[in-house]
Amino acid sequence: MPEEIVRHIMKGSRSALSRAITLIESARPDHQEKAHKILDMCLEHRQDSLRIGITGPPGAGKSTLIEALGLIILNDPDNTLAVLTVDPSSKRSGGSILGDKARMEKLSGRKEVFIRPSPSSGHLGGTSPQTHEAILLCEAAGYNIIIVETVGVGQSEISIESMVDYILLLILPGSGDELQGIKRGIMEIADGIAVTKTDEAPGKSVLLSKNSCESALKLLPKKHPVWNPKVMLTSAVSGEGVDEVWNNIRQFATVLRENNLFEETRKKQLHQLFCSQVELQLRHAFYNHPEINSSFTTIAAAVENNSTSPFSGAKKLVEKIIRPRPPQ
Amino acid sequence: MPEEIVRHIMKGSRSALSRAITLIESARPDHQEKAHKILDMCLEHRQDSLRIGITGPPGAGKSTLIEALGLIILNDPDNTLAVLTVDPSSKRSGGSILGDKARMEKLSGRKEVFIRPSPSSGHLGGTSPQTHEAILLCEAAGYNIIIVETVGVGQSEISIESMVDYILLLILPGSGDELQGIKRGIMEIADGIAVTKTDEAPGKSVLLSKNSCESALKLLPKKHPVWNPKVMLTSAVSGEGVDEVWNNIRQFATVLRENNLFEETRKKQLHQLFCSQVELQLRHAFYNHPEINSSFTTIAAAVENNSTSPFSGAKKLVEKIIRPRPPQ
Repeated sequence: MPEEIVRHIMKGSRSALSRAITLIESARPDHQEKAHKILDMCLEHRQDSLRIGITGPPGAGKSTLIEALGLIILNDPDNTLAVLTVDPSSKRSGGSILGDKARMEKLSGRKEVFIRPSPSSGHLGGTSPQTHEAILLCEAAGYNIIIVETVGVGQSEISIESMVDYILLLILPGSGDELQGIKRGIMEIADGIAVTKTDEAPGKSVLLSKNSCESALKLLPKKHPVWNPKVMLTSAVSGEGVDEVWNNIRQFATVLRENNLFEETRKKQLHQLFCSQVELQLRHAFYNHPEINSSFTTIAAAVENNSTSPFSGAKKLVEKIIRPRPPQ
Repeated sequence: MPEEIVRHIMKGSRSALSRAITLIESARPDHQEKAHKILDMCLEHRQDSLRIGITGPPGAGKSTLIEALGLIILNDPDNTLAVLTVDPSSKRSGGSILGDKARMEKLSGRKEVFIRPSPSSGHLGGTSPQTHEAILLCEAAGYNIIIVETVGVGQSEISIESMVDYILLLILPGSGDELQGIKRGIMEIADGIAVTKTDEAPGKSVLLSKNSCESALKLLPKKHPVWNPKVMLTSAVSGEGVDEVWNNIRQFATVLRENNLFEETRKKQLHQLFCSQVELQLRHAFYNHPEINSSFTTIAAAVENNSTSPFSGAKKLVEKIIRPRPPQ
């Protein structure tokens, strides 16, 4: 029962929260319906959180930095932390053979922490509307800090901007990443940059990376007129700079709140989630409609055999459901 | 009148062909309807062509290579050539300030050649269904060789595979492009690779680029079991290797035809165009429907003010048009 799951989520049951996220991920219509009932009820009880996106190329040390950062966040007993990881390369990378929880061993042992891989189905390399929905569920469960980890692989990545407040971009020193591998688009949406694994790299290449990031940032348009992204040097092993990252994130939240940009951001994010939901549900309702089901294959075959054009075929199919607007 | 435009297209009128492509690009419903009538008629008269996709990072010398290649193609008096260029970075790059025709000066002077920028509206960095439609129109006009030029900028690029036969990837020597800048995905769909501007680069870096491309190709899965992509050295200035590229393309076409893969590819391509058309027309019919028009803003506002959830709001909107399937 949705009501029961919601009650358990609100009580802090991690298994209820997991179950609800599983329903969100499911493509089955009955699961989707149940998931959205749960989400509706959760939205009513939602508390706001600070949402942090952490992105960077594979091997930049995202998991280890999240672990180090998470432990600092939990030094404040008021904080609880949810970590959602989106890893499209999971089938190949070593990281997820170990599993996300194993990668964040110390964090996953803490009872104030919820760690969960987030679905990226059909959304190559990036976050999906489902990730956004998982964030809303975590907020209903009372987590006040939410970290979303994504692999920075391309343009689709930019959708993370539509669901988090602060985006931290991780850069490996000396890899030339800061200029070549990293897409300009990802740099444009970063609120802070962490040069990682400084313990492993020679000091010179660390500084070089820092400088080139700073130069690149100067050339890019400002994301928030009230905020200057900072380039920080970090090592998850020695702990260097991780405190600085957390302070930077909190300072960012304060500045945004002071300028009334926090509420505005949330509204925009809800609007975008609504738009994605309209797209998803439109396509779902259309392709699952019995009349479309029965006509699609016939028309597609006619198109392949050149007896109908792709345009007329598509028109015929769509008009089975949506009558064209009367001519004006 | 669509019939008249079609008649002129079939007679070889370039201005009629241009006008038809303009109609395809237009978002106006009446233009769309007219465009699809034209396309329907053109499909009936379509002759097949050899379709070549040419892609590579900005500065790799796409225009100059296309010009050199085009002139060789036209050495055979049976050939006529259409060049469709998709350049999403056009607003910034020097290339298109000059204009595509100015960039291909020698080609554009020939009357067997049709050069036209192809719309990439809403399809960041890549080809769009409209590009595919422009190809079909060019085929109806009798062009037997069609070159589609795209900038290799990301994953969306891969859609070019759904509309051409042979994909030539251009690589600048010594830029490290072959390993870093170029996405693995683009390399996977290449049927041939041309290392360009060999006249400008030191011989050593040219060979290095060639070798690393060849090694990379060995690691990638085969696109066609019957074809091994070749890495060629080219200079549009000295003319080096351009003949080899054209021979390679013709050999590819022969091998594909001998293995009955040509017809199969065309069927798949029509199917994909049909699927994109269904998506496009579905969204168009939905968002332009009077009932959606009048409800969208109201529901979106309710979502932003937290009085409706994004999921329920979207459901309400979609169900205004598509009644849900009765429970089974």
